[in-house]
Amino acid sequence: MTDPRRRALVLFSGGQDSATCLAWALERFDYVETVGFDYGQRHLVEMACRQRVLELIPAIKPEWRRRLGPDHVSDLTALHAASPSALTRNTEISAPAGGLPTTFVPGRNLVFLTFAAIMASQHALGRLVGGMCETDYSGYPDCRDDTIKAMQLALNLGMNQRFVIETPLMWLDKAASWHLAATLGGPALLELIRVETHTCYHGDRSHLHDWGYGCGRCPACTLRMSGWNTYSAALATAAP
Amino acid sequence: MTDPRRRALVLFSGGQDSATCLAWALERFDYVETVGFDYGQRHLVEMACRQRVLELIPAIKPEWRRRLGPDHVSDLTALHAASPSALTRNTEISAPAGGLPTTFVPGRNLVFLTFAAIMASQHALGRLVGGMCETDYSGYPDCRDDTIKAMQLALNLGMNQRFVIETPLMWLDKAASWHLAATLGGPALLELIRVETHTCYHGDRSHLHDWGYGCGRCPACTLRMSGWNTYSAALATAAP
Repeated sequence: MTDPRRRALVLFSGGQDSATCLAWALERFDYVETVGFDYGQRHLVEMACRQRVLELIPAIKPEWRRRLGPDHVSDLTALHAASPSALTRNTEISAPAGGLPTTFVPGRNLVFLTFAAIMASQHALGRLVGGMCETDYSGYPDCRDDTIKAMQLALNLGMNQRFVIETPLMWLDKAASWHLAATLGGPALLELIRVETHTCYHGDRSHLHDWGYGCGRCPACTLRMSGWNTYSAALATAAP
Repeated sequence: MTDPRRRALVLFSGGQDSATCLAWALERFDYVETVGFDYGQRHLVEMACRQRVLELIPAIKPEWRRRLGPDHVSDLTALHAASPSALTRNTEISAPAGGLPTTFVPGRNLVFLTFAAIMASQHALGRLVGGMCETDYSGYPDCRDDTIKAMQLALNLGMNQRFVIETPLMWLDKAASWHLAATLGGPALLELIRVETHTCYHGDRSHLHDWGYGCGRCPACTLRMSGWNTYSAALATAAP
């Protein structure tokens, strides 16, 4: 078995960010498994998208096909019960000025990272990879770099392990994430992420825009769209 | 509503340690809720014991009756799926020399603390109380003081809160825990903890020993019994 430092577990939701992280891990490590969390989130469509991405991404590079190991889905319906968030209930989604958006499940990423670490310790995977980002972030404290670093400390002390939590998107905005995807897997990966990943809070997949599927109005769509527009404009300018 | 610093959530399993912590919290805070975790553990008898303790403990002091709020049980069967532990499977329980006992669910307390924090944040409870102890502990890294302090940091950063995790038993051995119970609630609490709490890994409640129910042979029973014997002997010596 390879060195655990060459083996990674990617927290993979089926969204743009975690799909980019999956490609990043497939490019960087010898062996990669994926984990998803089912916690009664309203956009179950994301769970279908993640399956499609996992089916299609190995075709992009032969070494990615060799490196991609099994996917795991962990049932965290208890998170649904413990939290009042709009992502898990049918309340209105909004982002009050200066406040956390109502989609916030407090501590969600802490739970995900802990479960991922438990799974990783069983499978000798020494690297945890997540799409947390504090550049475009919507004020989620569990996406902050400080939080992730404190969590790495708590997990390593509490499980007597030497995990490293890698967050390749931490300091990138959404335009830079599109650029990273293009760098990792060229037009094929860009197209895969554009068409197959899901971001929209309302689970809208009725119409394919140039930036992907989605309602185009919720905070997640707005962020994805504006990142795509910035990325495309820069690309057009750079073209000869 | 009282100051969150006067309101506590006790991680209450139904064992000796967490029952002592519950009494400690009832003595110290204005308002106390409890949370238990059901993760397919083999000693479901512990879940029945916790109900009995919650029914009986308010009778010990009138202020305890006023302070005790609702109990919550969180379904964490996903922990069962993620972990290979003997507490959740039917494998043999043993404590290899120098190694972790096979009852170890790696990261269990990290998951419990994170769920407890999510619940506490919903109910404006600013103190989390747990029976973690590194004195008699069986090598569980998630019971260490370092781990708990790192976890407090990760939870507060990741949830934008000001929780304090209180671990009143951290530096006590089991004899000192029996003594603490006597100090908090006199003979009535001591008797309640002796008869109603559960420790035995095998779920044995066939015979009431002077130290409580249990097989008397598993590592948990051995620890409980020897703590009781030391406590009783000291008591006998101290008597006039």
